[in-house]
This record gives sequence, structure tokens and C-alpha cells, in this order.
Amino acid sequence: MAQKKLEGAGLRGQVAGKTAICTVAALGHTGLTYYGYEVEDLAENCEFEEVAYLLFNGELPNATQLEEYKAKLADKRDLPTALKEVLERIPASAHPMDVLRTGVSMLGNLETEASFAEQSEHADRLLAALPSIICYWYRFSHDGVRVDLNTGAKSIGGHFLHLLHGKAPSELHEKVMHISLILYAEHEFNASTFTARVCASTLSDYHSCITGAIGSLRGPLHGGANEAAMDMIENWKSAEEAEKEILGKLERKEKIMGFGHAVYTESDPRNTVIKEWSKELSQDAPDDTLYQVSLRCEEVMWREKKLFCNADFFHASTYFYMGIPTKLFTPIFVMSRTTGWSAHVFEQRADNRIIRPNAEYTGPGSRKVAPISER
Amino acid sequence: MAQKKLEGAGLRGQVAGKTAICTVAALGHTGLTYYGYEVEDLAENCEFEEVAYLLFNGELPNATQLEEYKAKLADKRDLPTALKEVLERIPASAHPMDVLRTGVSMLGNLETEASFAEQSEHADRLLAALPSIICYWYRFSHDGVRVDLNTGAKSIGGHFLHLLHGKAPSELHEKVMHISLILYAEHEFNASTFTARVCASTLSDYHSCITGAIGSLRGPLHGGANEAAMDMIENWKSAEEAEKEILGKLERKEKIMGFGHAVYTESDPRNTVIKEWSKELSQDAPDDTLYQVSLRCEEVMWREKKLFCNADFFHASTYFYMGIPTKLFTPIFVMSRTTGWSAHVFEQRADNRIIRPNAEYTGPGSRKVAPISER
Repeated sequence: MAQKKLEGAGLRGQVAGKTAICTVAALGHTGLTYYGYEVEDLAENCEFEEVAYLLFNGELPNATQLEEYKAKLADKRDLPTALKEVLERIPASAHPMDVLRTGVSMLGNLETEASFAEQSEHADRLLAALPSIICYWYRFSHDGVRVDLNTGAKSIGGHFLHLLHGKAPSELHEKVMHISLILYAEHEFNASTFTARVCASTLSDYHSCITGAIGSLRGPLHGGANEAAMDMIENWKSAEEAEKEILGKLERKEKIMGFGHAVYTESDPRNTVIKEWSKELSQDAPDDTLYQVSLRCEEVMWREKKLFCNADFFHASTYFYMGIPTKLFTPIFVMSRTTGWSAHVFEQRADNRIIRPNAEYTGPGSRKVAPISER
Repeated sequence: MAQKKLEGAGLRGQVAGKTAICTVAALGHTGLTYYGYEVEDLAENCEFEEVAYLLFNGELPNATQLEEYKAKLADKRDLPTALKEVLERIPASAHPMDVLRTGVSMLGNLETEASFAEQSEHADRLLAALPSIICYWYRFSHDGVRVDLNTGAKSIGGHFLHLLHGKAPSELHEKVMHISLILYAEHEFNASTFTARVCASTLSDYHSCITGAIGSLRGPLHGGANEAAMDMIENWKSAEEAEKEILGKLERKEKIMGFGHAVYTESDPRNTVIKEWSKELSQDAPDDTLYQVSLRCEEVMWREKKLFCNADFFHASTYFYMGIPTKLFTPIFVMSRTTGWSAHVFEQRADNRIIRPNAEYTGPGSRKVAPISER
């Protein structure tokens, strides 16, 4: 399809609203901050639930608040029977993002947001339920199993891995899920978040906002780069093969996913973090080939093109080492980003004006309808 | 909730892209045009399927093309079993817009858009299926009936009325459905259409775009004004009572739905058209009270506030005279606007840049994560 850049298209550089939630390459440094905290700092020192609490409340929880919040979320993991029955009717061949979009939309029929005073309750509920939604469908459609959603897991990431693999994850894997979910939680006015805000600006309900955001994240220009990176690297058997293949792709001017970024110009702060954990996981695995392949891709892309890895590239090997099927990579993004989306919905509602831009008209001039017999 | 207007908020007056589809109060007149045709001209001389064809193709069909197109749409009305089973699991108490949002999303799992080359097929399919989706759920949840979706109706509006009432509509009612669906079909970069375009700009699939748009149209600042108008007028027993009540509302500074418009300043071109048909339906009905009540509201609002009826106000009485339950008013808007949404998705895809605006940061400055024991 055509990719010609319009003049002023895509609202690039136009301010569409205010936010107190996030900065990308601003606030005196080149990285990413959530409510003033650098994402690396959060990833090193927090659990994902702390960051969710931060995004929903503007401040990090203390130990008591965190414990209470995690217990509350753990209580909200089970799904209504009608939602399970809907998920059982979605075929294994479906796009997992379509499953999440439908699951969230269905939940909105069963647990409708009756007033904005309930918004935090719905956000907590969805945060807790998303791993259940995706894994209930995945295990039923792929393994023929009606999975028990009461895992007793201590974290959202742990709950996801437990449902997926049918057993509690290792401490290392649970830790890496925290890191990954923190890194993907929020990124200012990206297209899916902006979708959620446009929807919120009509004063629509919470589930409509998140359903819309999931639909936008599904697009290959937005979510899904880690899946594309995995598709590229998974068949390469050595660093040498990776180098040869990457050079071939560059020569053929093929698009290589997982490199560069629209906003970051020197590096993606999230890459430094996830790369370290990919390395640690590879050392824990029987075979570190995929990490070595990834490392060589990074070297070659920097040497040849001065392009750096973004958040997505080392996520591919990271998820691989945790036994996560490639088609569930973008759904993990949803499990994480629902926190940022929700925070933006709350913020939009608190100081709202309906988002309704203008268009430049390029169509035909005035004309009259001819009788159908004369057309 | 707060409704304070931000400086530059809501992208008011900012151009977010180009369109050849529609003008609102531009092109040398004060009204609404679809591909250069005034909406009044289309409403007077076309069937809704002609306007759908126009919005999808840029030109009106000739007689053969229209006949073929209507036959094609009629063939696409039935729903997959899995979708019917999903609709049967949505309670009668659900918001009908949540039902449509879920139904469209579920259809996307069962009939996924595999490539953009299929987009017209999916738009036709959805246009044909929307009355089936809403009525299948409505009749099952409210009347306990699994309605037969093969009505043999000659039009989309006729199909809807047939499913709803269990018999073919009168010629007059089918005609009025054409008018109503034409009037609501398209309105440039309104919030739901803009939602569809933001989603399309990530190169996501067709069903994600429409699902997102439905979620935005659900908001009370966008769709739903005709339902709100109906809720207001339905209990008034006479024009005199209407006048007294409206004056009371004005004195108490209450919001009165169905009057005024963000873009039109003198009148809404769609009101002139639908008002005439409300009058004709009232003369055909055993009792014309609701029309007389509506007429008096219009007089009082103009006399007291110089506010004119928008498209929504006389739609309330129009739909009432056709026996349509109030909760299905906004779903009819979806059945119509899906044509405009689809046209905008096609247009966005044909010359795309991802829609990713900037935000003005108003949050806390840089800070460090404190150990949880010290918070």
C-alpha cells in the first residue's frame, strides 16, 4: 500500500492535549519517564504491580498498599461463565489480538461501567483478567483444556506463565515478566493510547476505550514488532548465519523489525534493560543460540546502518527463553499497556473536550444527483 | 465530571488529514455533502444502498450496478453459528452499543481480513450483517426468539424492520429508513470516524477500525442524542405540556438534547428532511401527539434561545412512529455510519502515515524511586 508522507499528516508535532503521565525523550534526558521516574529505575527497583499502582494513582505504593493491591488483583482473575463460553467459540486460527479485543468487549457487556466513579475498579479488574482471557482461549483452542484460572500466583506475569505452562514459573521467569511488563506499560500519545483518549473524549465507557486501543495496537506499524523480530531470527542457527542474512536483507533493502524508533534518536532506554535479562535467561537455558544471534544482529545493524535495537528486539529472545509462543507476544504488550491506556482514559475524562479535528477537503465540487436511468 | 475547555484541546481547528469524502459547512454552502452531493439531494433521490455504493466507490451506481449491489448485500445477511451463540450470551440488560461492538469484534475472529485487498468485501459483509447482529440479540434476549435472518427484504432498512417486528414493513416505513440511514451515513472527521482512522493508521485490520468507531459513537457527547431527546419528550402528553417543561428546563439551565451543533451555525440540513418524514408518519399514525410535542419544542427553543434542531431531534419521533425501541436508536446510527467509517478507513490506508500526535507535559519533574521500605 502507498506510504507517501502527507504534509502535516499523522498530526506529527501537533499537540493534541496535556498529560502528567509520561515523557518520551523530554524532561532533561533522552529516555522514558512515568510520572517523573525513569523506566530503567522502575524496572530495576519495582514489581509491575507497583508501576500499575503508580500509573493509576500518580504515586508509588508503600509496602502495605502494594500488598493490598496485589491481593485485590489476585481476587479478580476469574472470568464469568458467559465470557469463557465466548472464548471457547473463537477458533485456534484467530489472531490473538482479535481474541483480546473480543474478550474485553464481552466483559463490557457483563460488567458494564455504570459511572465514571467505578473506573478504577474496572481498570483493576481488567488488569487482573487479561492474562486469564488470553490464556483461557489459548489453552482451550490449542490444547483442548479448560484451564483453572485460580493459580495462586503472586503476580500478573506469574499468573500468565502459570496459566500458559500449567505450573508455577521459576523465580527468574516471574522476575523477567515484571521487567517486561514495566518496560511496555506506558509511552505517551502513541497511536493506541491516542485511540483510547479519542474514545474517552466522547465520554464513552471504559471497555470501549480499551477495546479500541487493542484494535490499534494490533496494527503492524504499532504493536507486533517483537513478533516480527522473532519470525526473522528464529530460524538462524548461528551468529554467522545471522550476519550473512542481515547483510542480505540490507542489500535487498528489506525492512528489518526491532530497530530504530520514531522518537528516540540515539538508543531506546528499554533495550538496555531487556537485553541484560535476555542474556541472563540464555545462560540459564540449554542453548544460547538465539541470544547470540540477537547480539550479532545488533552489532551488524549498528555497524552497517547506525541503527539501534528498540524495546522489541531483545524481547523476542527473552520471551522465547520463557517458552512463550510468538503469537502471544503482542497480547503481553496489552497486559502491560492496559495500565497506561487506563491512566490516559482517566486523565482525558478529568479535563475533557471531545477530540474532533478538521480535515482538508480534496474531493469533487458541488454536483447534483442524476436520475438513476441517466447514469 | 469536569468540562473545562483546554487551550487548543480536542484538536479543534487542527487539520488531521485530507479527505475527498465529505464536507460539513464548506464547499460554498452551509450544509453537508458526500462526494460533492448535498445530503438533501441524496435523501430525496436515492436509496441508502446507492449512498453506500457512493461512499465506497466515489460515484453513484447506475440501475444495473445498484440491483447487483443490493442482491450481493442481501446474500450476506446471515450470521455464523458461533456469532449467534455469542450474541445469545449477552444479557438483555446490556448496552446495545456494547452488543454491536462485541458482535463486530467476534465477526473479525470468524471472518478475519487477511489482506487489504479484501476490504470492500468486509465492508459489504458488515453493512449487510449489522441489522442481523443487533436484531438477533434483541429478539433473543427480549423475546426469547431465535429470529430467522433470511427476511427476503429488499433493503437494509427493510431487513432491520422486518427482523425487529417479525413481518415486512410498510412501503412508507421502508422509505423512511432509507432517508434516515442516508442522513446519518457520513460526517467528516467526527470522533468515531477519527477513531477509525487512527486505528487504520497503524495498518490494523478492518474489524478493529469499526469496533473502535462503535466504541466512540457510544459516548453521550457523540451518538445517542436522539435517544436522549426521546427520553425527554416521550412522557409529554401535549404541546402545551412540552412548552411548559422546556421553559422549566431552560430556567433551570438543564441541557436539552437534540438542539444546536458544533459545526452548523444556522440550521442542520438533515433536520429539514427528517422533520418532514416525522410529520408524514404522524399523519399515518393513530395519534400525532409526539410530532406536535416535537414541533412545539422546536418553536420554543428557537424563540427562547435561537437554537435549531439538529439531525437527532425529529429522529426520535420518526423512529417512535416506526415502532423502534429507544435503545435501538444509536445502533441504527451504526448501521448507517459504518459506510462513512469504512470509506475513511479505505482512504486512510491508501495514503497512510501513522497518527501519533504530541502531548504537552504537565507532570512531576525527574525523581528517583525510593526503596519501598522508605515510602
